[in-house]
Amino acid sequence: MSTAVFPTPIRLVKADSSLLLEDRLAVEEPLEIRLEYGPEASRVRKSISITMRTPGHDPELACGFLFTEGLLAERAEMLRVEPCGPSGNVTRVDLSPDLPVDLARLERHFYTSSSCGVCGKASIDALRIQSRFPVASQGLCVTPSLIHSLPAALRSSQEVFESTGGLHASALFSLEGKLLSLREDVGRHNALDKVIGAAFLAGELPLSNCILLVSGRASFELVQKAAMAGISVFAAVGAPSSLAVELARECGMTLLGFVRDQRFNIYSGEERVKL
Amino acid sequence: MSTAVFPTPIRLVKADSSLLLEDRLAVEEPLEIRLEYGPEASRVRKSISITMRTPGHDPELACGFLFTEGLLAERAEMLRVEPCGPSGNVTRVDLSPDLPVDLARLERHFYTSSSCGVCGKASIDALRIQSRFPVASQGLCVTPSLIHSLPAALRSSQEVFESTGGLHASALFSLEGKLLSLREDVGRHNALDKVIGAAFLAGELPLSNCILLVSGRASFELVQKAAMAGISVFAAVGAPSSLAVELARECGMTLLGFVRDQRFNIYSGEERVKL
Repeated sequence: MSTAVFPTPIRLVKADSSLLLEDRLAVEEPLEIRLEYGPEASRVRKSISITMRTPGHDPELACGFLFTEGLLAERAEMLRVEPCGPSGNVTRVDLSPDLPVDLARLERHFYTSSSCGVCGKASIDALRIQSRFPVASQGLCVTPSLIHSLPAALRSSQEVFESTGGLHASALFSLEGKLLSLREDVGRHNALDKVIGAAFLAGELPLSNCILLVSGRASFELVQKAAMAGISVFAAVGAPSSLAVELARECGMTLLGFVRDQRFNIYSGEERVKL
Repeated sequence: MSTAVFPTPIRLVKADSSLLLEDRLAVEEPLEIRLEYGPEASRVRKSISITMRTPGHDPELACGFLFTEGLLAERAEMLRVEPCGPSGNVTRVDLSPDLPVDLARLERHFYTSSSCGVCGKASIDALRIQSRFPVASQGLCVTPSLIHSLPAALRSSQEVFESTGGLHASALFSLEGKLLSLREDVGRHNALDKVIGAAFLAGELPLSNCILLVSGRASFELVQKAAMAGISVFAAVGAPSSLAVELARECGMTLLGFVRDQRFNIYSGEERVKL
């Protein structure tokens, strides 16, 4: 059984009857990301993040997180990424000695020096990180029938969700509808970081010619991560938020929501959908 | 229209046909929480958090966040809480001059000094905050039919979800199944902070004789927040994670999952369910 699944005895209650049985839980455990950086003579080690995640693909999660937060731009800036310590819940990332590191970037979500107040517009300017890649792919075009086919393709490959009912998924598809990459996690931002981190490690960024499908809703943070990876078509099974739509429109991304039951809504970037 | 809902033009695609119409989005905007604390002669002002939330009930969100993070224990420790600045996205909380403030508590999720590695058990010890209230209510007992009735009661009151499909909800019910409090938010932890913050401001903590129902999954963080508020019955429409179940069992909370379609699973605290 996968380390992403934890079996446990439970009682199932139906109407007024009940029975004992074994259930499978989606595993949630903390992952600590530790950085080592700075010049050879004075390397610094620092724990920069603890996130609650489903174990598995941890180096990809760490790299995806560092890339989408703007701390790492490409594979060559990193010496190595590897598990560290006996728990399995620490991943260490060693950065190249000559890479300048600005940890203040990580605090953008939590601390601000804004004195003029926080508004939606200001937050898009302040919170988003400038992507290295344009959301380009002007010529890219998808058909409704391709989009309609994606949720079933995702679900049929979601192994851990099938057994636990408890995981979010992010998946990349080719323009022909072929599943290229799928990651599951209790945290939806982690699932996307794992997908992007895998592409980062494989030298496959930007993801200009892929369609991203997420199993749940589209938040500002997910759209921002997708923009960092140069994704131009973002499809969500659930609803987008107002700020997710605003950001997608501003950076020219095609954002589709409620992609299920042979229908979907186009929130931005309609020119990439062949109607 | 509520400030929680933002109308926007979209294109709906069904099979191969499409039409333009107006959709309603769940609003997501940042909320900055600013603290003022310390002795009269040397008050400190500090921005301690930015969370992406749905506007509305911001003072409750700020208080619920500070309470569940362990920075505020009771109403009297606070002088005032109020919106601040023109954007509507800043809430200022003034703490009593004689209240000791340990902002390091807020960093527990992101930085750790653990040298022995991070494991599930260690994280429960390290990440959870000691609750002021025991998860007591030994005598409290709920029937399956009461639990079965909760999801419909929640859904019928979820106004913004009905119009946008994009919000999480947290609700408190009495032991007779009466809806006592309901909050919606794009962030599920925010929805619960708002419910707990409302009870905090009304002097109604601990919530020993209430049932909590959340519209989605049960994570470690949600169970931890519920434990801080002294909630002894936690029901989730979705799946719980492994660490959520572990924490519930350790603190003696009744945790129910997949509460829908006239069934549910009991993960811990079976003694409170009258079978």
